[in-house]
Amino acid sequence: MGASLAAALRAADFVSDIVGIDENPQSLAVALARGWIDRGAPRFSRGDGDIVVLATPVGAIPGLLASLKPLISDTTILTDMGSVKQPIGYAAKALGLRRFIPGHPIAGAECSGPAAARASLFEKRVVVLTPLDGHDPEALFTVRALWEAVGARVLLAEAGLHDRMVAYTSHLPHLLAFACADFLGDQAAEGDLYPFMGTGLRDFLRIAGSDPVMWRDICAANAAILGPLLSGYGEHLAAYGRALAAGDFDELHAHFVKARGFRETLSREASRGES
Amino acid sequence: MGASLAAALRAADFVSDIVGIDENPQSLAVALARGWIDRGAPRFSRGDGDIVVLATPVGAIPGLLASLKPLISDTTILTDMGSVKQPIGYAAKALGLRRFIPGHPIAGAECSGPAAARASLFEKRVVVLTPLDGHDPEALFTVRALWEAVGARVLLAEAGLHDRMVAYTSHLPHLLAFACADFLGDQAAEGDLYPFMGTGLRDFLRIAGSDPVMWRDICAANAAILGPLLSGYGEHLAAYGRALAAGDFDELHAHFVKARGFRETLSREASRGES
Repeated sequence: MGASLAAALRAADFVSDIVGIDENPQSLAVALARGWIDRGAPRFSRGDGDIVVLATPVGAIPGLLASLKPLISDTTILTDMGSVKQPIGYAAKALGLRRFIPGHPIAGAECSGPAAARASLFEKRVVVLTPLDGHDPEALFTVRALWEAVGARVLLAEAGLHDRMVAYTSHLPHLLAFACADFLGDQAAEGDLYPFMGTGLRDFLRIAGSDPVMWRDICAANAAILGPLLSGYGEHLAAYGRALAAGDFDELHAHFVKARGFRETLSREASRGES
Repeated sequence: MGASLAAALRAADFVSDIVGIDENPQSLAVALARGWIDRGAPRFSRGDGDIVVLATPVGAIPGLLASLKPLISDTTILTDMGSVKQPIGYAAKALGLRRFIPGHPIAGAECSGPAAARASLFEKRVVVLTPLDGHDPEALFTVRALWEAVGARVLLAEAGLHDRMVAYTSHLPHLLAFACADFLGDQAAEGDLYPFMGTGLRDFLRIAGSDPVMWRDICAANAAILGPLLSGYGEHLAAYGRALAAGDFDELHAHFVKARGFRETLSREASRGES
């Protein structure tokens, strides 16, 4: 995501100078070769930027904010791309970072690393910003302008609402897909599953190809919301199981009709968002 | 699927005369207008075909076979496109239909009806045939030739194995997607989910747009296999829930690594099948 943003900011000519910070020199070499960054460095040095974007897995962000604080000036604007906003907000508040504007691009790519990066990743996508109480309005203005420059639609939300909504739309589906691939992997020994696999399964399991470290961090950061959600879903599934066992297929049919209706509303809203 | 097969057989010039049988005159009108069928009829009449393909939801097939039996000649070849093969096999065996070759195209389209039909639907897709003990070899030869003519790869399998494998690769994922859309629909009242929805969710829920009647029938036909599978998946998910509650994020990470590994094997096998 960091490389995609560098590419997009370069294409939009939003900033004159882009510094890539990464412990992996190969990632920096790719970004340099493609002209997305002007120079790379293994770690942040004093004066490395007017705007600093943190693009690490969500678990690293509170620690990074603490280590960046002594290295930045009073005018440096900070933002991030973490998928869970409440713990990051708490950390920033404790550090008194008024010019940190928490952000989350809902870009949905299961690939990570600079090889998968592309400048168009954020076009027409929603970026949610969850500014803290007492944030600097100029910092919010700049971060909003940055995302709009790469074609994103900026939405302001309260961090707690954000974390509940993405638990529904992203974290729960990821856990379900991981658990399905995990479960099928156990069963695959029973026979050769592959010839029986349609395109439906491939789409359904696409998100199970997401980065395990990133998702471990997301689960840790949003565990309080995600735990009850997983139980609630489990109860839904148990009701399906009871209907199957009782032979009550009309009940299943009623569930499917409701599910299809929601999915259709969702597709309609999604295509409206893109038009 | 019936309309797609008619279109594909017409494009392949496999048969001279195609009769569409449908209770819905609009479906027949679409197929006629596109040149996929030579004529349409609301129900099957004596002499309507040398090869009869049943393309109804799986629950209707045993009854259809019984009602077709007095209307077909000794040389008529029968096949079907139902997604569960054991109950259909039992019905055909009880009726003594030696020239019925059960089939299942793993084509994976969540749309149904002639408007969504296309001649290329079966190209490079697997079609599983589950011939009964004592089937007519000439009938098997013809049904195999029919599917190969429209570009499919034919696989022979025992009906019980087929039903277990598709429960894993198709029926379970469909139930999980239906239950997720169903569950999200309940929660949507809490807030506006749509802006928080990425492309990941859309792919994940694509199969929840499938026809509810077709899936009620599939669940009814494969309930004996699907019930225990749903419980097994539920136990996997409960283990994720316990790890979340206990804060054991390393255990979750290990599950995600395993899940991603299976998903990668599956993508590799899928692309090999297509090349």
